[in-house]
Amino acid sequence: MNEQSGRTEISSLGEFKLIDLLTQNTEIKHAATLKGIGDDAAVVDHSHLVSVISTDMLVEGVHFDMMYTPLQHLGFKAIAVNVSDICAMNATATQVLVSIAISNRFSVEALEALYEGIHHACQYFDVDLIGGDTTTSLKGLVISVTVIGEANESDIAYRNGAKPGDLICVTGDLGAAYCGLQLLEREKQIYLENPEIQPDLENKKHIVGRFLRPEARKDIITYFKEHGIKPTSMIDISDGLSSEILHICKQSACGAIIYEDAIPIHEETYQQATKFNIDPLVCALNGGEDYELLFTVDESMGEKIAQHAGISVIGKITDKASGTFLKTRNENLFKIEAQGWNSFPDQQ
Amino acid sequence: MNEQSGRTEISSLGEFKLIDLLTQNTEIKHAATLKGIGDDAAVVDHSHLVSVISTDMLVEGVHFDMMYTPLQHLGFKAIAVNVSDICAMNATATQVLVSIAISNRFSVEALEALYEGIHHACQYFDVDLIGGDTTTSLKGLVISVTVIGEANESDIAYRNGAKPGDLICVTGDLGAAYCGLQLLEREKQIYLENPEIQPDLENKKHIVGRFLRPEARKDIITYFKEHGIKPTSMIDISDGLSSEILHICKQSACGAIIYEDAIPIHEETYQQATKFNIDPLVCALNGGEDYELLFTVDESMGEKIAQHAGISVIGKITDKASGTFLKTRNENLFKIEAQGWNSFPDQQ
Repeated sequence: MNEQSGRTEISSLGEFKLIDLLTQNTEIKHAATLKGIGDDAAVVDHSHLVSVISTDMLVEGVHFDMMYTPLQHLGFKAIAVNVSDICAMNATATQVLVSIAISNRFSVEALEALYEGIHHACQYFDVDLIGGDTTTSLKGLVISVTVIGEANESDIAYRNGAKPGDLICVTGDLGAAYCGLQLLEREKQIYLENPEIQPDLENKKHIVGRFLRPEARKDIITYFKEHGIKPTSMIDISDGLSSEILHICKQSACGAIIYEDAIPIHEETYQQATKFNIDPLVCALNGGEDYELLFTVDESMGEKIAQHAGISVIGKITDKASGTFLKTRNENLFKIEAQGWNSFPDQQ
Repeated sequence: MNEQSGRTEISSLGEFKLIDLLTQNTEIKHAATLKGIGDDAAVVDHSHLVSVISTDMLVEGVHFDMMYTPLQHLGFKAIAVNVSDICAMNATATQVLVSIAISNRFSVEALEALYEGIHHACQYFDVDLIGGDTTTSLKGLVISVTVIGEANESDIAYRNGAKPGDLICVTGDLGAAYCGLQLLEREKQIYLENPEIQPDLENKKHIVGRFLRPEARKDIITYFKEHGIKPTSMIDISDGLSSEILHICKQSACGAIIYEDAIPIHEETYQQATKFNIDPLVCALNGGEDYELLFTVDESMGEKIAQHAGISVIGKITDKASGTFLKTRNENLFKIEAQGWNSFPDQQ
């Protein structure tokens, strides 16, 4: 380590020592993890359960901005968004593999902070870190996470099982992460123009937290299990409610009606959106990155769903010919169109 | 598509259409793949077998140079190097997930070429493409592949089971990929200095092919099964023989002696190394990227191993106190030290 700067160059360690350093605190908790880090591959025994697998890639400058993203939070988020995909299958996440590509702009200390967040998330979501890859990049940081989960095959909720009459439900509240991102972007601009001004994030804990350190709704999957609820379809909200309900309608070959006044929006989201002259409803519909669950259940489940204060019934599945609409407070109908987040903007 | 250039911008398609285009030819062949691409996660049922999982990240400018890497070959190689890790566990690869991050320098046609190689490799190695992620990068191409395999738990070969007296074996020949890389690098320099000169790759098919389109030795795993051979330890040679034998010795708590004259080196490798004034032995020991298998077996397996023309017995496992040595043709002993490929060079 360079004593003066507190910065250790990655090149001073080499690949194997770096991996040792970053993974030395790795605990294996699941009996199903027969072999974790340290061989050509990890070995997992899900026994009579099926394996559920998903992968996500986070790229600096595309998915996160290092100016306002603490590395611990980034590590946590990289795990959380993957665990969220497993929740969306009504399955339990059990293992993760984490690959990173890093430029020499990052110090060993920066990577330790990133892995602090990763280890914390593994503990929080009860998943074992069982492998990965560590390499250089020519520019910036790339994090690729693969998550493995397990479930009884009959419990799995796909996107294609919704049927007319089913209740459409969401967990938590929507649009918060988008407002958090807008706020962080504004504070970044102010800072760039005048580095003397401190960011004003008072009373914005909910929206900023939702963007920087999202939850994966593992608790909801537990609630389903405990109450004998099986969603007929489910998806996690990464691209926005509009985009996700259309996925369910397309794959289930059905239509839907969503009631504007039933969409849960947090007070902070409402205030911040209004301050930015954005319709809070638009944040909820198109904002994305909320990582709440959107699911459908048979009407008969209505009472059990109502018992959970954190789940809102926001609409009903209709037949395919009826299309997919939003019914506003004043009874107008608007066709729902996908306006989710697009990671391929024109970069000309 | 821009008719004049034959180039379609990725931004003209958007994420979902791009994914559809790249994955439309995806075939699911394994009964164990219950759900592939198209939901929040894939679902796999390995039934009474255990799952074996590995992941690798390839970064442009670090692991490959677009100047001499055809995209079809790159797609193939990204799958092959992952399948190789599953082979090194004495397991059978069954599924892959492929994530890519791409800058707008790449056209849709370029990505189609990449996926042509990926699909070809999936067919060749009999693995199902079951998921992934597609996103933008600020610079260059990043490919992250996760591979899943299956095995009877009792068949798995870890790195830690070698014991004194075991035979040390390698498949195929070593050092070829390194010589191929050196040759391609030289041709690139010549081309950069004078673009009129055509690359001279006559009679270099073996070494160039080994670097650009490596094999994963699935055939060897089949041979083991058919002949009742279970390696006591196994690893694939990605960083060079020296580095890999040290991994086995460290994890198995043993020593080893390797005989120089038993190390298999291809005629082309020998010639090219000599032409470059590099000792062919150094290529074999430290070259890396050969993706052959290094394994140990009980002495009693000697005859069965000898029946396979593509496997060489190159040494013997000794006790830990004896250390790890190379015995040269003239009976000198050299301590083996790790000099494998380091992806974290000092980038100052």
